[in-house]
Amino acid sequence: MNTSPETAELETSAPATTADLQQFVSETRKLVDAALDRLLPAESVPPTTVHTAIRWSVFAGGKRFRPLLLLAVGETFGARPELLLDTACALEMIHTYSLVHDDLPSMDDDDLRRGRATCHIRFGEATAILAGDALQTYAFKTVAEDEKLSAATRVQLIAEISRSAGTPTGMVAGQASDLEAESREVTAAELEQIHRLKTGALIIAAARCGAIIAGASKDELASITEYAAQLGLLFQITDDLLDITASAAALGKTPGKDQRAQKATYPALYGVEATREHLLSAHATACASLDLLGRLDRRSELLRAIADFILERQA
Amino acid sequence: MNTSPETAELETSAPATTADLQQFVSETRKLVDAALDRLLPAESVPPTTVHTAIRWSVFAGGKRFRPLLLLAVGETFGARPELLLDTACALEMIHTYSLVHDDLPSMDDDDLRRGRATCHIRFGEATAILAGDALQTYAFKTVAEDEKLSAATRVQLIAEISRSAGTPTGMVAGQASDLEAESREVTAAELEQIHRLKTGALIIAAARCGAIIAGASKDELASITEYAAQLGLLFQITDDLLDITASAAALGKTPGKDQRAQKATYPALYGVEATREHLLSAHATACASLDLLGRLDRRSELLRAIADFILERQA
Repeated sequence: MNTSPETAELETSAPATTADLQQFVSETRKLVDAALDRLLPAESVPPTTVHTAIRWSVFAGGKRFRPLLLLAVGETFGARPELLLDTACALEMIHTYSLVHDDLPSMDDDDLRRGRATCHIRFGEATAILAGDALQTYAFKTVAEDEKLSAATRVQLIAEISRSAGTPTGMVAGQASDLEAESREVTAAELEQIHRLKTGALIIAAARCGAIIAGASKDELASITEYAAQLGLLFQITDDLLDITASAAALGKTPGKDQRAQKATYPALYGVEATREHLLSAHATACASLDLLGRLDRRSELLRAIADFILERQA
Repeated sequence: MNTSPETAELETSAPATTADLQQFVSETRKLVDAALDRLLPAESVPPTTVHTAIRWSVFAGGKRFRPLLLLAVGETFGARPELLLDTACALEMIHTYSLVHDDLPSMDDDDLRRGRATCHIRFGEATAILAGDALQTYAFKTVAEDEKLSAATRVQLIAEISRSAGTPTGMVAGQASDLEAESREVTAAELEQIHRLKTGALIIAAARCGAIIAGASKDELASITEYAAQLGLLFQITDDLLDITASAAALGKTPGKDQRAQKATYPALYGVEATREHLLSAHATACASLDLLGRLDRRSELLRAIADFILERQA
């Protein structure tokens, strides 16, 4: 089996699907950016420092992966985008708050993110902490105030997002475990668990929220959960690989930082080649978990194309 | 008019009411502490560092003022404590997260809180940031998962809490404005606005959440909002005064810090004597706003006693 991503690209992406995905991604990003602009306070609203810092971080050229996934899953199950958009933005707010806090000097100490100064470099540490805090609050406010959805759905979404963002089952638990694991040996099982929490939990929540809003069945929700879990793994492994193989320009952040900090990464544990095999295996499992949808007469091309897209990402 | 707090104590507190309040406070604190213990992960749950840090900060001898107020208002309007407790804890989680982040070196840089080491001194900055982040998430999770309340009520509570905790109408906006105001002259109007956001918003939310859970009428909610707004003002002014008059031992934190940081405070703007007059005026307005409740045949002794209690607090 050839494990190079370039070959994998040729094997998995039919041209039509790639074009569909590109159109979906570019249209959806525009929708998401417009919704984020509507939901967040203008820079001119006092206190202007924190609102300017929030917008600096939210509109920094992010890939909008979690919103895209939420919308793709929701649309797969037949929901209209306008029902999905605000929750999609809430997940992007949670993701952005975590980046702002992660970049702080006492955390990963990153000066560069998506090709420009991180929030604390631009606005100072105190404002960056507050911007992150406010973004988390905005995420829950956004869902709570989304009157297009029933109260029962909103409560279910908020519970889902909070479990995936906090501790002990979510993103903050992953970040804390990651800190605990620095400068000591971790087992493969521990590494999987760190990734599952740190990156996977919020990606799974994005997919599940899309399915919940669309009123997916219990079986469909289980399928989507497994698909998203593999997608999260795929995402983290490509991140680890890019950290050691990509340039700062392509990455938009400082490469090689994980390695220098002796972070628990797949390449550190398995080596680059075996890590690439893990990648292809996660991709195959993600696609297999979509088979049930086909049997339920759902179209799953978009979700398959997303799995391909992550496998092949260069930044 | 004699503006000394000691005289005010004699004037406003009938012995029976003081005893009632003391019993209410001690019973309610026990209930709240037990509920917080139930709602938050044990220290032994991994990642243990962040859960130990969360409990260090939550169980640090806090006064539980926001939960007490929520329960007092809810019970005034006839709700059973078990319906109020989880939301009361959510407000305490928001409050505690804000203290943990406020104490960080880039913010107020406090080593001491409630008589012991602050979270970042004890566990390091990275863990303190994550503990605060997780506590905020827990607050929303707690309300979203409170199945004793209808979904419609939970959504209303989450919207209320998020507006009072974030920006531009809540606590984080107050903290950001406070930072912006450091080392420059502020007007009395700006000072009122900073306090209203930084401390007042969450206190108002606590009172309103109690009233909402109890199904208070629109008029009752308006009355309670005004009462709590004055209570918030009272709370902030006593805080400012204590910062310059109390000892570290009585205060459990480093006194005089506001003054040295040239923070916008009432005594800095008006002097100590005029600030004490403000205090009594806020107390009188708080009590007056409860008059409507009497006309609606509600008992308001407990809420009056709380206003007295803050007026007289020594720490």
